[in-house]
Amino acid sequence: MRIPYGEMRDVFLRILLKYGFHEEKAARAAELFTDNTCDGVASHGANRFPRVLTYIRKGHIAPAADPIMEESFGALERWNGNRGMGCTNASSAMDRAMELAAISGVGCVAMRNTNHWMRGGAYGLQAARKGFVGICWTNTMPNMPPWGGKERRIGNNPIIMALPWKESPVLIDGALAQFSYGAIEAHRLAGRQLPVPGGYDEEGRITSDPGAIEKTWRVLPIGFWKGSGLSIALDLIGALLSKGNTVRQIGELGDEIAVTQTFLAFNAEGMYGKEYVESVVEGVLSDLKRAAPAEPGGEILYPGEKEGRTRRENLELGIPVNEEIWESILRELA
Amino acid sequence: MRIPYGEMRDVFLRILLKYGFHEEKAARAAELFTDNTCDGVASHGANRFPRVLTYIRKGHIAPAADPIMEESFGALERWNGNRGMGCTNASSAMDRAMELAAISGVGCVAMRNTNHWMRGGAYGLQAARKGFVGICWTNTMPNMPPWGGKERRIGNNPIIMALPWKESPVLIDGALAQFSYGAIEAHRLAGRQLPVPGGYDEEGRITSDPGAIEKTWRVLPIGFWKGSGLSIALDLIGALLSKGNTVRQIGELGDEIAVTQTFLAFNAEGMYGKEYVESVVEGVLSDLKRAAPAEPGGEILYPGEKEGRTRRENLELGIPVNEEIWESILRELA
Repeated sequence: MRIPYGEMRDVFLRILLKYGFHEEKAARAAELFTDNTCDGVASHGANRFPRVLTYIRKGHIAPAADPIMEESFGALERWNGNRGMGCTNASSAMDRAMELAAISGVGCVAMRNTNHWMRGGAYGLQAARKGFVGICWTNTMPNMPPWGGKERRIGNNPIIMALPWKESPVLIDGALAQFSYGAIEAHRLAGRQLPVPGGYDEEGRITSDPGAIEKTWRVLPIGFWKGSGLSIALDLIGALLSKGNTVRQIGELGDEIAVTQTFLAFNAEGMYGKEYVESVVEGVLSDLKRAAPAEPGGEILYPGEKEGRTRRENLELGIPVNEEIWESILRELA
Repeated sequence: MRIPYGEMRDVFLRILLKYGFHEEKAARAAELFTDNTCDGVASHGANRFPRVLTYIRKGHIAPAADPIMEESFGALERWNGNRGMGCTNASSAMDRAMELAAISGVGCVAMRNTNHWMRGGAYGLQAARKGFVGICWTNTMPNMPPWGGKERRIGNNPIIMALPWKESPVLIDGALAQFSYGAIEAHRLAGRQLPVPGGYDEEGRITSDPGAIEKTWRVLPIGFWKGSGLSIALDLIGALLSKGNTVRQIGELGDEIAVTQTFLAFNAEGMYGKEYVESVVEGVLSDLKRAAPAEPGGEILYPGEKEGRTRRENLELGIPVNEEIWESILRELA
């Protein structure tokens, strides 16, 4: 089924108000959950909304908590998310990083003790739509083995980079695992192999069989040893700068809470003007588009292009949502 | 053969002085070429030194050119490398990023019109050894196809992250291709398959056969589509911030010159103290070390640990160098 954007946002808003969020924060969160679903990332939009409500009921997410600044060093600030709503905490952190960048060219907010931000790309887009380059990453539960190891001790620590580009910014938004747990499950349910190897089977062999990987949960980092190193470095940098939990420490908490996030903004259009920024991005993207496709008739998409197309389609036709999930969300209003 | 550290450095120094470098710059460059070789990265140390001399003779690298600041925005500065020596340009850029970070918590130097920095990890180590977190990346010639494309239009754009950790900092230093061209060639010469797939054969199939990949030069990005996106984003960010060449523009220059590099420093120990920084890194690394190894008797290394071991060994025993290459270098002194 498809739900119009405004209707979906209003449903989220009314539920969040019932759960004790102040109006402004509820509105921002409702918008983020709707945007994520609208952009084709329902896994971190409508589909994840019920679990967020569970976390609120469990006391993992405090609706009334607001982030506070703990230390300032000029262009870099250390914030405490106070275990508030992850998506609004992240949104205000990127806003603050942009304020700092508007003064100093670059700004950094390191936030500890916050919650799952849902779709990290949302904060990249937030920066890019205001003319900034945005970079951010989060750490996670231990959910991937380090290179050379069997046990899950590192996070898949998604990293986001975004740049201004007309109505659909350039956006990369990816976990450092080759596939998310959700993608592996979806392939198994559909009876499909993964398009490239995604983990290890019980004999320790690299495999594309989603069912075999689910038995070990030894997923592969992107680039094998390279992604393992990136994951460790991003976890360390975030935890150092924010004085927040490392992946290891989050693993001791039972649920994925009190995570650590880092936000960087660069004042691209503010420093050099919109026209210059557009000309650079145009030069690179048009060159990519001209490359011979690998498959006859294929098309080369720039990073973020697919999400932009999905968004336009869903704004017009309504946002696709799983009927069962939507019904369960509507029951919150009863 | 093995050459003692001091002897190797002095040979490089004397040659660079002959080529017209001022004493201080020649000394810093000689040290960097020696360090890279000593850490086990001869490909960007002694083995690359003759090509750098060729670039100087061709006029691609100007020994007398110094980088200059073109614009300052507070914690972010835009520099012009003036096509000077890549390694000393990069070293002074990271020094400047640290100076900015010492004032503002974070500092960024975006440098255009510079030359190949040899081993990017050197500038990460430079920051980490002074108590900073260092992040830097460079763009390159077009040497990898974008995801979905056949032609090489994106760079393998190496990215570096480093953090303080006793005598051997945590260090990741990796191109966004799964394997460098040099590694692919070395496997073919040794008659070995790559340990994981590294590119495409002539039928467009993903392969681990180094010879087949050399026929197409369609190398794989790390994480397939993910590394392709990362490469595009890093190229765009660097070029935007520095007003420098993009990968596409470097491709028009014939040789890999006038590249664009970005340097970020975070004042970790300055903000929070050495003891705190050590405790965070210690917590993560000791946890990794405790993970069950994938292979019986295996060992999990932290990123940068191997380079540190190699360095200690080579400082003691002398630095291994290919005899033929070393002879050709010595002939420069004749």
